Amino acid sequence: MRFINDRFMITNEPGLELYQQVAKHQPIIDYHCHLDAKEIYENKTFDNITQLWLAGDHYKWRAMRANGVSEALITGDASDEEKFQAWAQTVESCFGNPLYHWTHLELNFYFACDKMLDSHNWREVMETCNRRLQEDEFKPQALISRSGVEVICTTDSPLDSLHYHRLLANDNTLTFRVLPTFRPDEMFDENPATWSAFIAKLAELTDKQISSLDDFEAAIARRIDFFHEVGCRISDHGPLDINYVPAEKAQVASLFANKLNGDTLSVNDHAILSSAMFILLAKQYKKRRWAMQIHFGAIRNNNSKMREALGINTGFDSINDQVNLASSLNRLLDAMAQQNALPKTILYNLNPIYNDIVATTVANFQSADEGVKSPIQFGSGWWFNDTRRGMESQLNSLADQGLLMNFVGMLTDSRSLVSYTRHDYFRRILCNLIGGWVERGEVPDNKDILTRMIKNICHDNAENYFKF
Amino acid sequence: MRFINDRFMITNEPGLELYQQVAKHQPIIDYHCHLDAKEIYENKTFDNITQLWLAGDHYKWRAMRANGVSEALITGDASDEEKFQAWAQTVESCFGNPLYHWTHLELNFYFACDKMLDSHNWREVMETCNRRLQEDEFKPQALISRSGVEVICTTDSPLDSLHYHRLLANDNTLTFRVLPTFRPDEMFDENPATWSAFIAKLAELTDKQISSLDDFEAAIARRIDFFHEVGCRISDHGPLDINYVPAEKAQVASLFANKLNGDTLSVNDHAILSSAMFILLAKQYKKRRWAMQIHFGAIRNNNSKMREALGINTGFDSINDQVNLASSLNRLLDAMAQQNALPKTILYNLNPIYNDIVATTVANFQSADEGVKSPIQFGSGWWFNDTRRGMESQLNSLADQGLLMNFVGMLTDSRSLVSYTRHDYFRRILCNLIGGWVERGEVPDNKDILTRMIKNICHDNAENYFKF
Amino acid sequence: MRFINDRFMITNEPGLELYQQVAKHQPIIDYHCHLDAKEIYENKTFDNITQLWLAGDHYKWRAMRANGVSEALITGDASDEEKFQAWAQTVESCFGNPLYHWTHLELNFYFACDKMLDSHNWREVMETCNRRLQEDEFKPQALISRSGVEVICTTDSPLDSLHYHRLLANDNTLTFRVLPTFRPDEMFDENPATWSAFIAKLAELTDKQISSLDDFEAAIARRIDFFHEVGCRISDHGPLDINYVPAEKAQVASLFANKLNGDTLSVNDHAILSSAMFILLAKQYKKRRWAMQIHFGAIRNNNSKMREALGINTGFDSINDQVNLASSLNRLLDAMAQQNALPKTILYNLNPIYNDIVATTVANFQSADEGVKSPIQFGSGWWFNDTRRGMESQLNSLADQGLLMNFVGMLTDSRSLVSYTRHDYFRRILCNLIGGWVERGEVPDNKDILTRMIKNICHDNAENYFKF
Repeated sequence: MRFINDRFMITNEPGLELYQQVAKHQPIIDYHCHLDAKEIYENKTFDNITQLWLAGDHYKWRAMRANGVSEALITGDASDEEKFQAWAQTVESCFGNPLYHWTHLELNFYFACDKMLDSHNWREVMETCNRRLQEDEFKPQALISRSGVEVICTTDSPLDSLHYHRLLANDNTLTFRVLPTFRPDEMFDENPATWSAFIAKLAELTDKQISSLDDFEAAIARRIDFFHEVGCRISDHGPLDINYVPAEKAQVASLFANKLNGDTLSVNDHAILSSAMFILLAKQYKKRRWAMQIHFGAIRNNNSKMREALGINTGFDSINDQVNLASSLNRLLDAMAQQNALPKTILYNLNPIYNDIVATTVANFQSADEGVKSPIQFGSGWWFNDTRRGMESQLNSLADQGLLMNFVGMLTDSRSLVSYTRHDYFRRILCNLIGGWVERGEVPDNKDILTRMIKNICHDNAENYFKF
Repeated sequence: MRFINDRFMITNEPGLELYQQVAKHQPIIDYHCHLDAKEIYENKTFDNITQLWLAGDHYKWRAMRANGVSEALITGDASDEEKFQAWAQTVESCFGNPLYHWTHLELNFYFACDKMLDSHNWREVMETCNRRLQEDEFKPQALISRSGVEVICTTDSPLDSLHYHRLLANDNTLTFRVLPTFRPDEMFDENPATWSAFIAKLAELTDKQISSLDDFEAAIARRIDFFHEVGCRISDHGPLDINYVPAEKAQVASLFANKLNGDTLSVNDHAILSSAMFILLAKQYKKRRWAMQIHFGAIRNNNSKMREALGINTGFDSINDQVNLASSLNRLLDAMAQQNALPKTILYNLNPIYNDIVATTVANFQSADEGVKSPIQFGSGWWFNDTRRGMESQLNSLADQGLLMNFVGMLTDSRSLVSYTRHDYFRRILCNLIGGWVERGEVPDNKDILTRMIKNICHDNAENYFKF
Repeated sequence: MRFINDRFMITNEPGLELYQQVAKHQPIIDYHCHLDAKEIYENKTFDNITQLWLAGDHYKWRAMRANGVSEALITGDASDEEKFQAWAQTVESCFGNPLYHWTHLELNFYFACDKMLDSHNWREVMETCNRRLQEDEFKPQALISRSGVEVICTTDSPLDSLHYHRLLANDNTLTFRVLPTFRPDEMFDENPATWSAFIAKLAELTDKQISSLDDFEAAIARRIDFFHEVGCRISDHGPLDINYVPAEKAQVASLFANKLNGDTLSVNDHAILSSAMFILLAKQYKKRRWAMQIHFGAIRNNNSKMREALGINTGFDSINDQVNLASSLNRLLDAMAQQNALPKTILYNLNPIYNDIVATTVANFQSADEGVKSPIQFGSGWWFNDTRRGMESQLNSLADQGLLMNFVGMLTDSRSLVSYTRHDYFRRILCNLIGGWVERGEVPDNKDILTRMIKNICHDNAENYFKF
């Protein structure tokens, strides 16, 4: 029997039925990823499977390091063939890790290959993949098309020209749309030098002098308008933790000026300034009916030696914990709500122990005001939680503390053109969870409601929520 | 097949047998709830199902807000009929949420209605319920009686006259007892003005001048005696977090005087005073062989706009986290133990990530001294944990780290007269858990011990522990 | 049917097969325990089952206290017979607690007794056990031998003479080796008096004057060499929490001198000195290719009255939580990595809510440098996690975030000569987990890989990792 079949990750009949009849046929709205619009636009053939799979995937790099593979074979000078072999040997040791699943979902769906990659068959698999990668249907746009994708939202600096997004928007041959996401993390940089450089570039781009917080607000509003025109409907923030410190406007203005002057702010002053800027942005988002994403809790680049050798985002990140999350998160959302600055918001929590805090906090700020159901969303299991266990934990917390029916569902969060199978993975886990409820009699076997629920979470909620 | 049947929430045969033969026949000792003694005494007919179900139930309000229902239809001016309809539409979206279960357990048990409430049948269900609510068996006392309740413990201010408790105690027709619980949260109020007002009322009620901590102790001891005479055997405390800061008696006395003088204490001084007052109370409880309940970890009224509009306890609370729970909780219990002031104690933890900390801390203070088994109890899954997942987590932590056999079991914690089905919900989950152990061979299929275990947890332990 | 049989803790066929064909036949490398080398060497017959089971087992004491047994029958003056009876009555109330399992695994494996110990049969079971304990195969060395143990690592003070380890090393009749572990917790003592006494003894033992940090390093290196000669290949550390505070060498040297002078250091200064000493030790371990164990997060001796009455390690410990574990742990390991002082390391986490933090942090420091797979290990579920739930949580976190294939597996951590059945308990849970994956199609049913995985985790990984 093939490893990847319709029953993969699904152990009950109602779940299998929901998957086969509903979930697997839904198109994909991939509202958060890290694809490069240029790469999609240029639509170049990949050299080989090592380039596609291993050139930038720090998940795989981590597994190889844990398997005793030397760095030369991971990010170093070894040949693409040697690297693929080292990866194949590692795959064999990945029993129990989601990489085993992702790898074979991708081999199956994109390459129609049902081998289990291992230390014996690596060359055969590699050669099959490399041969197929030369076909037209393995070019970026074809990969996206045949994944059933309707919309892609990339992740972009406020300073980005969105050149390729505009080119893509004008290409009538595409079966999908590629929209930018406004991600202003640089605005929260602690280092006054790099921060000031960002402000200077922002001033230049917007043709505005920025010498005060009000100037800044005007400038950033311009960029937000610009993003809006190119189709952006979502922002994204990636703080280490949630930390809200209120202050009078005058104090904030003075901190802004000091930082622009090159002063390094104290931890508390930095938090004050960041809090104010966050709310200022949130107000802009709300005005334009954007959704705001907050991906919090990743502690990054923890291995200094490797950071020096390889740079950032090379597989040395982990899950953070923080002091008093519940009060901080409630105070942040409350401050936004009080200042009429709470837009549709999606909170992605990296530490699963906080799932119940997040789920119960989200529920404190629901309302009918945004014209959508569950405007404050508890986002899908993220990064290290992109596992059966992680997804089930998020789904269960959300179901217990909110309305799972209204969940906007999955996203890839990926740099790879072949990871749309993550949606499939999620859908299987979702159908299995809900099917299990049906099987055990915890929810009635009401086909109408169950079908609506699966359609909602796989596709329709995202469509209605984001209104791209 | 009916949705609610004997197998509901039970997926194994040994569990079903334990439920059918033992659990479902046990009477209820509801040792913690928020019913109003006056409401029970006056025994008035409910106007309609909206009044019974939706007038004060912030669980349902939260779900409706998450479903995009406007506030007018939740707590606003809409008609009872409109509100019921909005609720019925929300129920349909509650698949996976315990509200779906509670709603149908109540419809089934109290109204003998086996419809699944939805956006189509809402009027029919409403009319059935409204008609039946006029029958005598839907009056408060009848609802309690036919739920199999032996004892109810309400939750009361130290200043309460307990007028209705005394009237109820003298009513020979009742098949159940209604006892007060001593809940002195006002003693821990940070605001010196409201705190002093409480002290003044306490002085007036007890005919004692209160100008020192010793005066206070004498006065509060009188109120405790008064509660004791009316049948009270339990106290309850609801701190945001566990925080124990010791100090010399002289310092505490001086802080007491300062606060009485209208001074706002520093955070640390407030913690010192609260710690001393907590221990002072605990000593009084122990002297009278009362049990002390501590419900900690709810962060309340987090949405300022809604608090202003609707007041407190309107559905804007969530789960808190705190710094160094383990050391704080150990220090608090240790201080009580050292001062011979640790009574029978039940710790209810709102954040399930702390279950193992609480369960292993409780075990540090067990002894034979109180003449009961497991005098220090890890209380049942509470509020946001009143779910299959939440209850199983508490039960599993307790079983792993203590003796589940000695657990005092479930309580409703409810403001509603029809939530005794929560005991049924708990019992099903309990039987399913233990039945699963039997089925998988993790415990022997010893009928005597298993029957005793279920009877103990459903009823007998509470009887022996509280000695009402 | 016997309670303990091959299916005990195993609910799926693939798991049963892995257990029966692979796991149960593996020898035991018990690389961390608290056995006394003297007790093994002297090899004396036990007086009775109470001495073997109840004389030092604080797990059982806690359960008895939770069951309302008076202290006289636990650690007091009662007769061994009375104590055993009190224990048997408690066992009956242990349904759901791992003590129920451990007790019957030990009765079965060592005593070939398949009774379920209870309040009725306690005398019969006691007499059977007491009779058998007089047989030669119940002497310490025979108990170890027939448990299939190859290597035992005890836990020893740096000041220990290792006299009995050396005697054991010269005994050719033994079928197992008994190696010391270097556990220098006294080096981190906050109390300057006891700390200085330790330093003084260290100076005496090594014939070196210790008046500076450099002197100390030289002296401790000698002890490490001495341990190495007697076969030690592992160290162990037991901090309350993970706390890394860097400082310049001069500051550390001055703090060392101050403490030696009798000064009590501030909390921060103590952390600085401890951080430096930890890294200094780690460098020594790495140089000798030792593994470093860190058991963190136990908060100990929390009941002051009982500590005064009974001393430490008497059953009053629990699980700790701490502020900012992720950043502290990453900074500690990073500091070691930067200073070329990160040896093979095993992190044991007592609080299961931190499992994902630990698992994702460990992955930041993997490399091929130590010549073993997964040099940084996430250690097995420990103490309060020595349960099905605790072990599965650790195994699942490790599988999701790392490579379970490379896990060094189980250890007893025990003071008892009959707790090798804990390895059996672990192996059953491991086989059940992985067998469940096979059954549900989450991993392919590849016999070669699955067999290797089980053999690796039960035995081979430890052999290759520690290289005793």
